Amino acid sequence: MQRVEPQDFSRVLSSMCTKPHPAAREAAEEFLATNPGDPGTYETVSELEQEAVDMLGTVTGLPNPAGYVTSGGTEANIQAVRIARNRADTDRPNMVAPDSAHFSFNKAADILNVELRTTPTDEDHRADPDAVARAVDEDTAVVVGVAGSTEYGRVDPIPELADIANEVDALCHVDAAWGGFVLPFTDHRWHFGHADVDTMTIDPHKMGQAAIPSGGLVTHSKSLLDELAVETPYLESKSQATLTGTRSGAGVASAVAAMDALWPVGYREQYHESMANAEWLADRLAARGHDVVEPELPIVAADMSMPVTEDLRRRGWRVTKTGAGEMRVVCMPHVTRSMLRSFVAELDWF
Amino acid sequence: MQRVEPQDFSRVLSSMCTKPHPAAREAAEEFLATNPGDPGTYETVSELEQEAVDMLGTVTGLPNPAGYVTSGGTEANIQAVRIARNRADTDRPNMVAPDSAHFSFNKAADILNVELRTTPTDEDHRADPDAVARAVDEDTAVVVGVAGSTEYGRVDPIPELADIANEVDALCHVDAAWGGFVLPFTDHRWHFGHADVDTMTIDPHKMGQAAIPSGGLVTHSKSLLDELAVETPYLESKSQATLTGTRSGAGVASAVAAMDALWPVGYREQYHESMANAEWLADRLAARGHDVVEPELPIVAADMSMPVTEDLRRRGWRVTKTGAGEMRVVCMPHVTRSMLRSFVAELDWF
Repeated sequence: MQRVEPQDFSRVLSSMCTKPHPAAREAAEEFLATNPGDPGTYETVSELEQEAVDMLGTVTGLPNPAGYVTSGGTEANIQAVRIARNRADTDRPNMVAPDSAHFSFNKAADILNVELRTTPTDEDHRADPDAVARAVDEDTAVVVGVAGSTEYGRVDPIPELADIANEVDALCHVDAAWGGFVLPFTDHRWHFGHADVDTMTIDPHKMGQAAIPSGGLVTHSKSLLDELAVETPYLESKSQATLTGTRSGAGVASAVAAMDALWPVGYREQYHESMANAEWLADRLAARGHDVVEPELPIVAADMSMPVTEDLRRRGWRVTKTGAGEMRVVCMPHVTRSMLRSFVAELDWF
Repeated sequence: MQRVEPQDFSRVLSSMCTKPHPAAREAAEEFLATNPGDPGTYETVSELEQEAVDMLGTVTGLPNPAGYVTSGGTEANIQAVRIARNRADTDRPNMVAPDSAHFSFNKAADILNVELRTTPTDEDHRADPDAVARAVDEDTAVVVGVAGSTEYGRVDPIPELADIANEVDALCHVDAAWGGFVLPFTDHRWHFGHADVDTMTIDPHKMGQAAIPSGGLVTHSKSLLDELAVETPYLESKSQATLTGTRSGAGVASAVAAMDALWPVGYREQYHESMANAEWLADRLAARGHDVVEPELPIVAADMSMPVTEDLRRRGWRVTKTGAGEMRVVCMPHVTRSMLRSFVAELDWF
């Protein structure tokens, strides 16, 4: 199989991460040896983290956000479920999520001892509010909605899901890990300003173009974040709400630098470019007779035979498959039109 | 209060992290945009991770180690407790740890729904095997020993603790997050080769001189790690044992580079230098009439009045306090004799 150099993205169509923006890379290198987990020692990066959270609030429609820069979307999702579990008044907490939810919710279920109830998605791969309403009960700690699903880039009907959560006194968590930095430029109703959302995952190191590790957990109020606090003897700070202890200052600084450079104009341009690329690819694949799941955000899934995707991998292309077996291409910022032209040209050789 | 620049370590005596080794920084920058959490896309860094685990096995006396590079010691400790909890045949699992254990075990208890039973340490701040033996029962999933405690750098009697764990069919976890890269050069009995240890935390980004985030979880067998596996649809790999999803390739590459550069000669030299610095500082503080906790590894704790530590912070020195209120200085690789001379000289001004 053709090897791909560590940071060569020229044939990577499978990743939800991307080449960091130059300003993000520079900031990551400048703050490589800092630890926002120890704010008494590393004050500068700790202040930057508050800036990052404030900017994430701006992106997600929340004026006074609480939260922190996580190691990634998985940590943010686990922590959101943990907030809900700790707050729920039950010994047998459950969470309800559509079956399009990321596998980090399976991790959260195992780690946190919370039952995961998945509900079927509708024919267009979105959460079905009726199915969710049937699945919740008085032990439901959190209802999960996805804004930009991993496999098909679909956006669940968040306001309806938030209403269902409210009815059973559960929290509403939105996983916008990947979609959060493109959704502001669409007509979707997905964020704190659209619905009664309590917590959200939004990752600068995905469509936000920051360096890894830079995820985001945003909570509607400080008191929700306080559900996570444990005491910290020997540090100058008194408590810690994060899942991890030592954390990457590179990720924090890089998130701020990327958002400074790109919000909102750069992200808007990138969204339009990525979306145009996704539509271009979807058209080309459809024209070749493949069943294509119409892109709604910049992800394309198409029914291709197994040998084709295996052959593509041998030629150095990185593509993945959906659970249903479709080939999946994520049109990240590093995925250019000329890359996609080469990709389609190679497909035609088979 | 005097500001400290992002990566200026010239007055930092409080951190358990340090300036990365030049080779470690270089590797981190080279692999900044890679994600070992997606080995199908980022193969090179994924192979490097196996090298890192093998080297951690060498450092900790384990010929065929399983494990992975975590975000830090907290993740590794949580995951070790999770392995033990998932393996334990009880609905009310508990863990037993000395009260010198890091606060990440409090986090693990909350996150994982495992009761934390802490036992008093002896007069020299080490776990007391008799107290541990009294605390365990048939619901004990794991007995925790510390090899290089956060506050005083003490090493628990690991072989005795492992025997106690064995007697109740619990796992034995050793937290050598900080101590793991200096202990090989001492006479302590702390690792897999010395006792029936099941899992260990050892962090390259502490005394290992790698860049953040680079922690380590090492397990005695692959089957222990498999307790953590969840399925991963849409990734080329089939399951994932890590707590986080997307992970830092910078941390992985940096760990390998640091260990390549320093194991064992560089680490041995650093240990002797740091230890000599700790003893020098302890002597100077004792000569000035302070009660000093004799350093056993390169950490010094001394009874100083509150105003002094506050004054030191105002002058830009970063020092922390133990739970008992002593001033605590961690003699990391960036802490030189000349730094300590300046520190003691400023102390004399008060």
